[in-house]
Amino acid sequence: MNAPATFDPQAFRAALGTFTTGVTIITTRTAEGEAVGITANSFNSVSLNPPLVLWSLAKSARSLAAFSDSRFWNVHVLAAEQEPLSGRFATQGSDKFDGIELDEGIGPAPLLPDCTARFQCRTAFQYEGGDHVIFVGEVLAFDSSARPPLAFQSGQYALAARKPRQELRLGATPPPECSYTEDLLGYLLGRAHYQMLDSLRRLLAAQSLDEHVFFILSVLCIRDNLTLDELNAFVGYTGHRVSAQTLAELERNELIAGEQDGDGTRRYLLTAAGRERSLHEIALAKAVESEVADQLEPGDVMALKVLLKRLVAATDPGLPDLWAAR
Amino acid sequence: MNAPATFDPQAFRAALGTFTTGVTIITTRTAEGEAVGITANSFNSVSLNPPLVLWSLAKSARSLAAFSDSRFWNVHVLAAEQEPLSGRFATQGSDKFDGIELDEGIGPAPLLPDCTARFQCRTAFQYEGGDHVIFVGEVLAFDSSARPPLAFQSGQYALAARKPRQELRLGATPPPECSYTEDLLGYLLGRAHYQMLDSLRRLLAAQSLDEHVFFILSVLCIRDNLTLDELNAFVGYTGHRVSAQTLAELERNELIAGEQDGDGTRRYLLTAAGRERSLHEIALAKAVESEVADQLEPGDVMALKVLLKRLVAATDPGLPDLWAAR
Repeated sequence: MNAPATFDPQAFRAALGTFTTGVTIITTRTAEGEAVGITANSFNSVSLNPPLVLWSLAKSARSLAAFSDSRFWNVHVLAAEQEPLSGRFATQGSDKFDGIELDEGIGPAPLLPDCTARFQCRTAFQYEGGDHVIFVGEVLAFDSSARPPLAFQSGQYALAARKPRQELRLGATPPPECSYTEDLLGYLLGRAHYQMLDSLRRLLAAQSLDEHVFFILSVLCIRDNLTLDELNAFVGYTGHRVSAQTLAELERNELIAGEQDGDGTRRYLLTAAGRERSLHEIALAKAVESEVADQLEPGDVMALKVLLKRLVAATDPGLPDLWAAR
Repeated sequence: MNAPATFDPQAFRAALGTFTTGVTIITTRTAEGEAVGITANSFNSVSLNPPLVLWSLAKSARSLAAFSDSRFWNVHVLAAEQEPLSGRFATQGSDKFDGIELDEGIGPAPLLPDCTARFQCRTAFQYEGGDHVIFVGEVLAFDSSARPPLAFQSGQYALAARKPRQELRLGATPPPECSYTEDLLGYLLGRAHYQMLDSLRRLLAAQSLDEHVFFILSVLCIRDNLTLDELNAFVGYTGHRVSAQTLAELERNELIAGEQDGDGTRRYLLTAAGRERSLHEIALAKAVESEVADQLEPGDVMALKVLLKRLVAATDPGLPDLWAAR
């Protein structure tokens, strides 16, 4: 740990930021009826009986008067999907509530929809807190949903990846001389991928379908008019190689159609039957995914996808964009 | 959202729990010199100038007198690896500090090592907070480290998976009729896995090594004395199949040795040269991993591994435990 040479406010802010928080929007209404709302992560629970929560607001905030004067305010614990709303309420502007259909609350304060949890409060105390005022509110009503919540850490939005209480071990603890362990990222990625692929393979096989063909049809479903070489440029990194024979067989089965180019290159596209087959296969892949998702928590699946995208972006050898317009 | 029929304390607690927090241990010392510490997630920052933080403590807590009487206390934002410490300080017992080598703080309060951040505080205010007391402290000193912090959400420990501010897209937005998108978990897993495998393949190929042999040697490095069938039971889910010919070739190259069983089955183990080769290959796999890890944040890598383990556990078709003792 590095002790700071001087008490630098920026370093102080960074150190405070390592404490993970959720993200809330806190709303109230002025005596004139104007809706006011700000994004805050200084929220926390205080007391169960009586039910109290707190948050703090900068004394310099434009909304201070509104929150000080009004006794009613609502805390909205934002869902991961409400990240744009968090940004909107974190920046100054008069149109924060534009286009939002408010729910009916028990008090005058605006009640936003689609949150993870909401607490409708009445000020119990306002405390001195340096350059902030600490608002302690009595919770008059609350509700919650199963939406995975948005988190915030070190200045970045985040999703919480839940850790089981017991360390999750897939196998027995390896002997110390064994340097190949289940904690190798490559092992975990491979095992996760192959296990999911294996489930798909079983579903495909039950309908006499084939994994290799699934890949080819999927690519042609996204992008058609590809040559054999172009197809291979898209799937080459997987280690799969599409052969001219496979394409010829798919042509014979009327799942794809080949057309000779002006310069003699053959370009392939899906037939109507091929597109139907491909959509059916993609539906099977989605069935595998939703079976897996049912066993994880929704927030975990979201977090996993975000992390895999970061990993893919970080290890991308420069693959052509399969979805790019031409 | 479900409005609660009655104001049920358990439902209230659950709703509050959806707000993600970090995990802290807060310590102080009694006038008699006894070290006192508790786990708390009610911490939050209040003010930058003056530097103030707050947390709240149940009035029923055994440590209330110690914190009320002492003016000095330290907040430790726990690192992910300190999860056991969180558990230890969350349960009553007199041996919480046993075996911990404390750092030297500026006040009498115990200062724990190896945290993500630490704030050494002196009580500025004690506020009424229902069944809790709210402690507001002036921060006298602080420090922080790069250790990924521990998070807490809905009663479970968690790791924060950072979300980039801009939604991360790997490719262009697919046309609406295209149901195969980059958001399919199977696509992301496959692409992440194949891209990492491709990096490994290149490293192996540069030394005339082979991916298929890498798998076989890795398994034999963890468990030897396997028959061909047993080997295939371990790798079969990957779609790879080990053939008798491959094993014969590895025997010829003196990387593995085969021994005839009493009943005529051939069992294989690594030779010294095979073990050396395997360890070298595993080192290459670790090099790929650390290159990837350098491009992600340490907390992200930890979160990704936890999530992949959950996924593997959820989709495990009942594979034999490669690391199990025999």
